[in-house]
Amino acid sequence: MINSITDIFNPELDLSFERIVDLPPEKIWAAWTTPDLLMQWFCPLPWRTVACEIDLKPGGKFHTVMRSPEGQEFPNTGCYLEIVSNRRLVWTNALDPGFRPAKQPEASPGHECAEFLMTATILLEPLADGTKYSVWVQHNDIAARMKHENMGFEEGWGAALGQMVDMHKAM
Amino acid sequence: MINSITDIFNPELDLSFERIVDLPPEKIWAAWTTPDLLMQWFCPLPWRTVACEIDLKPGGKFHTVMRSPEGQEFPNTGCYLEIVSNRRLVWTNALDPGFRPAKQPEASPGHECAEFLMTATILLEPLADGTKYSVWVQHNDIAARMKHENMGFEEGWGAALGQMVDMHKAM
Repeated sequence: MINSITDIFNPELDLSFERIVDLPPEKIWAAWTTPDLLMQWFCPLPWRTVACEIDLKPGGKFHTVMRSPEGQEFPNTGCYLEIVSNRRLVWTNALDPGFRPAKQPEASPGHECAEFLMTATILLEPLADGTKYSVWVQHNDIAARMKHENMGFEEGWGAALGQMVDMHKAM
Repeated sequence: MINSITDIFNPELDLSFERIVDLPPEKIWAAWTTPDLLMQWFCPLPWRTVACEIDLKPGGKFHTVMRSPEGQEFPNTGCYLEIVSNRRLVWTNALDPGFRPAKQPEASPGHECAEFLMTATILLEPLADGTKYSVWVQHNDIAARMKHENMGFEEGWGAALGQMVDMHKAM
């Protein structure tokens, strides 16, 4: 279990994203773990998340379907690894639900984020007035990290987080 | 979390091994989670386990080095996924320690068990006089399951378990 990514971050293989968010950890946690909420913010527009299934336990299923602006649908399935309510959420696409090793990623034109393996960790640290929101994504080689980075990792996670904040402000 | 493999076993992708063992669950658990014990039984002779590192937590390292009769050494590194003392132990080589996706397995002549991905689950069910010992191994395709089966999965796990029982009887 980790509480900070600083000590373990591998700059060759990892990506990270950190922001101070004007929401309590509980609201960010709900946005990540409630399908009806996640679907509202998870994909940067004009992409949309049109289906979501969450079985919130180690080995449980994390499934989303993303729809491109042209209407093409792309399913993503992963497996939760660690769940600490309101603090830390870890999942991977290197395992299928039930911890089964996943098949190797294949070329997926238009949906390059399905072309590499990753483990994502969301860390929420409560602040006096908000949350320190940290994302840590681990890859298995430099090429995968670079592909993810060049897809617009930073911009994508930033846009999605903005949509999450807007959703909560509007509720 | 699973307590029986019967309902979830996939005959195309999975292998299993079940025995009634004349040891309490606590002794089998110790054999699996204590490096000095594990090294005594884990490899069917004339192979030997010459190094072992165990960090018993989700995301923790499970590392062994096996030595062939000819003296060649083969390291194996995996990652623990679920730990329920004396009942259930789950690890995979599809993730490296810390949950990082592992690199793809490579050809490893003489050490074919490094050539495929797997998730292994050990289930211990206490009986009035011993333990029901179940092993469930999940693969990501039929070829991997067949390779593992043809390597002598059943014989290998049986021989190792026999060594484990002999070790405890001699203690």
